[in-house]
Amino acid sequence: MARATLAQALFAPRAVALVGASGDAGKNTARPQRFMRKHGYTGRIVPINPGRSEILGEAAYPALADAPGEIDHAFIMVPAAQVATVLTHCAARGVPLATIYSDGFAETGPEGAERERKLVEHAKKLGVRVIGPNSIGLANVTNGATITVNAVFEMDALPRGGASVVSQSGTMIGTLISRGAARGMGFSKLVSMGNESDVSVGEIVEVLADDPDTQVILLFLETIRDAERLAQAARRAHAAGKAVVAYKLGRSALGEALAKSHTGALAGSDAAVDAYFRRNGIVRVDMLETLVEIVPLLSGRKPPRLKHQPRVAVVTTTGGGAASVVDRLGTLGISTLTPDAALIASLKDQGVAIRSAPIIDLTLASTADKYRAVLEALLAHPDCDAALAVVGSSAQFHPELAVKPIVGVARGAKPLAAFLAPNAEASLRLMADAGVPAFRTPEGCADALSAYFAWHAPTDAPKAPVPEWPAALPRTGALDEAQALALFDALGVPTVSRETARAPQFAHTLPYPVAAKVLSRDILHKTEVGGVALGIADREAYEARIASLLDTVRSRAPAARIDGVLVQPMVKGLAEAIVGYRHDSLVGPVVLVGMGGQLAEIYRDTALECAPVSEEQALAMIARVKGFALLSGYRNLPRGDLRALARAVVAVSRLASLPGRPVAEAEINPLMVLADGVAAVDGLVVMKGSA
Amino acid sequence: MARATLAQALFAPRAVALVGASGDAGKNTARPQRFMRKHGYTGRIVPINPGRSEILGEAAYPALADAPGEIDHAFIMVPAAQVATVLTHCAARGVPLATIYSDGFAETGPEGAERERKLVEHAKKLGVRVIGPNSIGLANVTNGATITVNAVFEMDALPRGGASVVSQSGTMIGTLISRGAARGMGFSKLVSMGNESDVSVGEIVEVLADDPDTQVILLFLETIRDAERLAQAARRAHAAGKAVVAYKLGRSALGEALAKSHTGALAGSDAAVDAYFRRNGIVRVDMLETLVEIVPLLSGRKPPRLKHQPRVAVVTTTGGGAASVVDRLGTLGISTLTPDAALIASLKDQGVAIRSAPIIDLTLASTADKYRAVLEALLAHPDCDAALAVVGSSAQFHPELAVKPIVGVARGAKPLAAFLAPNAEASLRLMADAGVPAFRTPEGCADALSAYFAWHAPTDAPKAPVPEWPAALPRTGALDEAQALALFDALGVPTVSRETARAPQFAHTLPYPVAAKVLSRDILHKTEVGGVALGIADREAYEARIASLLDTVRSRAPAARIDGVLVQPMVKGLAEAIVGYRHDSLVGPVVLVGMGGQLAEIYRDTALECAPVSEEQALAMIARVKGFALLSGYRNLPRGDLRALARAVVAVSRLASLPGRPVAEAEINPLMVLADGVAAVDGLVVMKGSA
Repeated sequence: MARATLAQALFAPRAVALVGASGDAGKNTARPQRFMRKHGYTGRIVPINPGRSEILGEAAYPALADAPGEIDHAFIMVPAAQVATVLTHCAARGVPLATIYSDGFAETGPEGAERERKLVEHAKKLGVRVIGPNSIGLANVTNGATITVNAVFEMDALPRGGASVVSQSGTMIGTLISRGAARGMGFSKLVSMGNESDVSVGEIVEVLADDPDTQVILLFLETIRDAERLAQAARRAHAAGKAVVAYKLGRSALGEALAKSHTGALAGSDAAVDAYFRRNGIVRVDMLETLVEIVPLLSGRKPPRLKHQPRVAVVTTTGGGAASVVDRLGTLGISTLTPDAALIASLKDQGVAIRSAPIIDLTLASTADKYRAVLEALLAHPDCDAALAVVGSSAQFHPELAVKPIVGVARGAKPLAAFLAPNAEASLRLMADAGVPAFRTPEGCADALSAYFAWHAPTDAPKAPVPEWPAALPRTGALDEAQALALFDALGVPTVSRETARAPQFAHTLPYPVAAKVLSRDILHKTEVGGVALGIADREAYEARIASLLDTVRSRAPAARIDGVLVQPMVKGLAEAIVGYRHDSLVGPVVLVGMGGQLAEIYRDTALECAPVSEEQALAMIARVKGFALLSGYRNLPRGDLRALARAVVAVSRLASLPGRPVAEAEINPLMVLADGVAAVDGLVVMKGSA
Repeated sequence: MARATLAQALFAPRAVALVGASGDAGKNTARPQRFMRKHGYTGRIVPINPGRSEILGEAAYPALADAPGEIDHAFIMVPAAQVATVLTHCAARGVPLATIYSDGFAETGPEGAERERKLVEHAKKLGVRVIGPNSIGLANVTNGATITVNAVFEMDALPRGGASVVSQSGTMIGTLISRGAARGMGFSKLVSMGNESDVSVGEIVEVLADDPDTQVILLFLETIRDAERLAQAARRAHAAGKAVVAYKLGRSALGEALAKSHTGALAGSDAAVDAYFRRNGIVRVDMLETLVEIVPLLSGRKPPRLKHQPRVAVVTTTGGGAASVVDRLGTLGISTLTPDAALIASLKDQGVAIRSAPIIDLTLASTADKYRAVLEALLAHPDCDAALAVVGSSAQFHPELAVKPIVGVARGAKPLAAFLAPNAEASLRLMADAGVPAFRTPEGCADALSAYFAWHAPTDAPKAPVPEWPAALPRTGALDEAQALALFDALGVPTVSRETARAPQFAHTLPYPVAAKVLSRDILHKTEVGGVALGIADREAYEARIASLLDTVRSRAPAARIDGVLVQPMVKGLAEAIVGYRHDSLVGPVVLVGMGGQLAEIYRDTALECAPVSEEQALAMIARVKGFALLSGYRNLPRGDLRALARAVVAVSRLASLPGRPVAEAEINPLMVLADGVAAVDGLVVMKGSA
């Protein structure tokens, strides 16, 4: 027989070995076997336990070598020290995939991390793929292959659904299943990644992108370990018409620190993660429960591609309940549709009276038919991007009546969602059965609609020639400022003219006033060591200022080699911008543009995207930076050349296209924005491995 | 017998007349009678219906005049046009309070508002107090006085609790009751304010402050109609040891517009509402469900009075679930307690092993006693401000076991809360029974903890002499800039020297360079009509610039009377600030301080408080304005005199202490912040009734 593919081994194994299975039903290690039988797994279950010949009615074997038949998946529940040996046995028996429940690896600290590294190296040599270690297991709800110790599978009936889950937290799988089950929303496949030492989130998403039972892929992420593969997998899912939704920790510095401390994962910036999700068409939700509730909103839909501020038509019988959603939507930049005269008239013809208001009150139009007519008319309106029905007490006391008009609306291109104001489990269930997205809280409802409207197809990196590394510049180590500016020149960023003045005369030919800056590849932040003199009026001042400057620098940074002084004419722009490039530790190259100057620095008024970007993307970034309003006609101020700024952003972002991506970090600060063009005044480039 | 007090008439009426009661059990107007009987009301129910002598087993009367005995409360359910007559009957029968369910008043537009105004005038003359109109009614759960048509009272058993609700949305009462009941959390009293035409939210809060069954007062607010009375009532509640919690719509512009359109309520700024809540010790929650969930967190507690960033000790068996709360807490400025060596050692002595991490994982310390020991040790730790237990699957499958260690912790000064990761209704119920605050979502949990830490006692307006209105200034109409600056002088704000130069010579004696500004009480925004000339170098330039300035102003504002030109020396500060005063339409006088300049204007970097403020409060406001970091030693920049700025804020805020509060709006923009002192350069004052 053929060796199982990863997809088969994961979700449709012909036989599963449970290594370390216990016959004591009270123990965690007895659970997988019980769960698989309970949930109808029809493949073979092979308990491995040196002390038992039978476990819970199943023939048990002392070791994998003794077990008969083809085994596609081993679930390993033995102490950490024994795991490597079990993997050797897996290889000997031709088991292609092992999920390791055992803990005591990277999650415990540096020693455990080393143990894990060796284990993975061992598994790679053996040709055995590994999920975990420290994975609570995985489950295919559709065929009962619940290869997991997760207590949530104690439930007698697991509802099935079109959503599959990949989670870096095992217990979160229980949270999602139990919250979904309470309202009749089920899942297809769920995988706990554990320490994600071998098989990665991206690889599982790849499998799910091809899985006919999966329509929406949900990610619970603490970190991102395989950005490129996950990006490709998300694109594959998009091509297959499947949304990928992520709840990712690390919104706060505390959350980031946590992810880092938890399993030694790297922390990146949350803005970079946002950019990465946007670039790859991954929908990000802000609230945990949204991960469950958003499924019917995205299932079978495409990204909405709006060019305007989204508008939701809100219909209700409970003004207060509807207002709580609408107020929240407002804070997220989503407005409501106020019915126009034509809509009011056309509904009047159908016997429905509505008023022109931001929330459409239907207290009077009490029949289900009228309610449905209003919803259908709104969804058909060209200014409506989605409709929301907010249901009051009827959701609690008359579920059938309450949901009837809503579930009766034919599914179209625009989504129809519902928020149920009271506690209304039966109504939530009826909505779920009908595939209508229904929300338990106003905040969750607004979060999901906002995530839906922010959903975009993956965008491709722009096609552009690969920049050439200037022959004169070193390819490793640090660049001094003159070299940094030469690199920006080569990328196509306009830079100010400059001369390198060298000891002993420090002669230059530039007209005054000038700026002078110490030139040293050993000094990254010149201002901090007193290495910058601005507005030098004449030769006399120049000599005095650079003498004093060099004195200060030598005393503050005695070890730095000083190559000279960089002299530039003073340039005054309409505003200062900052353009940066960085290789984010989680998601790779990103480019940033922001308002320059100290005040903007305090406000962190920047926009960030994955690099490289196109000019159109750079313009969109610039539009997100609030301060640039000062250059776009605000209060009749003179306009700055934001298109030239965009071209500079594009040019800097192309550092990501250099073969081998040698640059770790680059920054132009300030880049002067002029009425016509831009000029880089100060540049900094840090090569990889040099810091 | 004595006429009932408002409190008695509201919540303990000896008899309730149901005017317009229906005998048709399917009608809304039949509900109050059914609900009151069902929920055990022991007073008399007096249905009034001209066509019936008996309704649902109760003797009915054609009119109030025919009904026997003392009646303390009339619930009016007749068409709008008949309400006034019913009120006349109420007065004749000595009924002190009428709750009006009838709609067709202010909520329908200007005509309805006029109808409502007349009705209230009528009721005032009669001496009958009115709740509503358009009120869904009110309920006292403890004695079954459920005088309401709210469908939620169809429930067979209404749990009782120490929270009472005052709501400007009737349907929200149903939402809160049903959500509370689902987890065993009940209420004491609930009032739907309807259009709040007479009895106001503040008046009800006053009654609840004195109510022995009420421990926490919850407000669902669309607007604020009686800021002063509500403020007094909130202080009374605080004095009685009761927290007042508000969920208020209007966070977004859309929500504000909605409140306005809904019942013709005024819209104020949300920042002003925030300031008002802070000033009066009202806790604001961000999420709707928090209004229910926060009750046990605040019940019987005092404001925490922290001087540092709050720290929560988080204990869990589910890392992912805990991280979802902790990440959210981090975004709200709340950190966690990482156990120190002493704590780890002391727990080790008790046989509990924990690690030094931002979340304390108790997977190994599995017994209830150990779990409780950890919680108690943490709560006793001086760096711990609250403890949070995050419970995983055991909350779903073994509620008794899961909640045992948590509910077993003795109640102390610091709160202990719980977040239950899975769907776990039984556990939520056990927590509610034990009075432990338990949360269904990580976001709600973080919202409640954040609201708790932000909870402060009401602060008093500073004692300061009442400023005198300068005799030379008019008390009505608009002030020109010279007058405005004279007022700021009188308040004690340092202003720049200036002279008024008048036609035809426009002579002045100030040294150059100077600024010149058109002086006209008809021109509020001088820059917009070209009325400002800065940096005038000498007399020649002065003459040319003001000639051109006056030409431009005359062409752009032909109707404005021009009184001359205000000449000032050019002043350069370390930074520009803006100080403002405004009579907010909802909450009254507020004072604002912000970073000045166009960039800061874009970022809306301001802090706002109710006026007047003390110097200490002004300094706290300044600390909240991010941009002032530039004046506080940021990157070694020169320090600005922020104490002088605070004194200027105090001085401007004292406009609120002027008898009759004649000023509608005042602004100093810019106020130059110097190394030593401040100087108001430009002032604007708008008197009430002049715009």
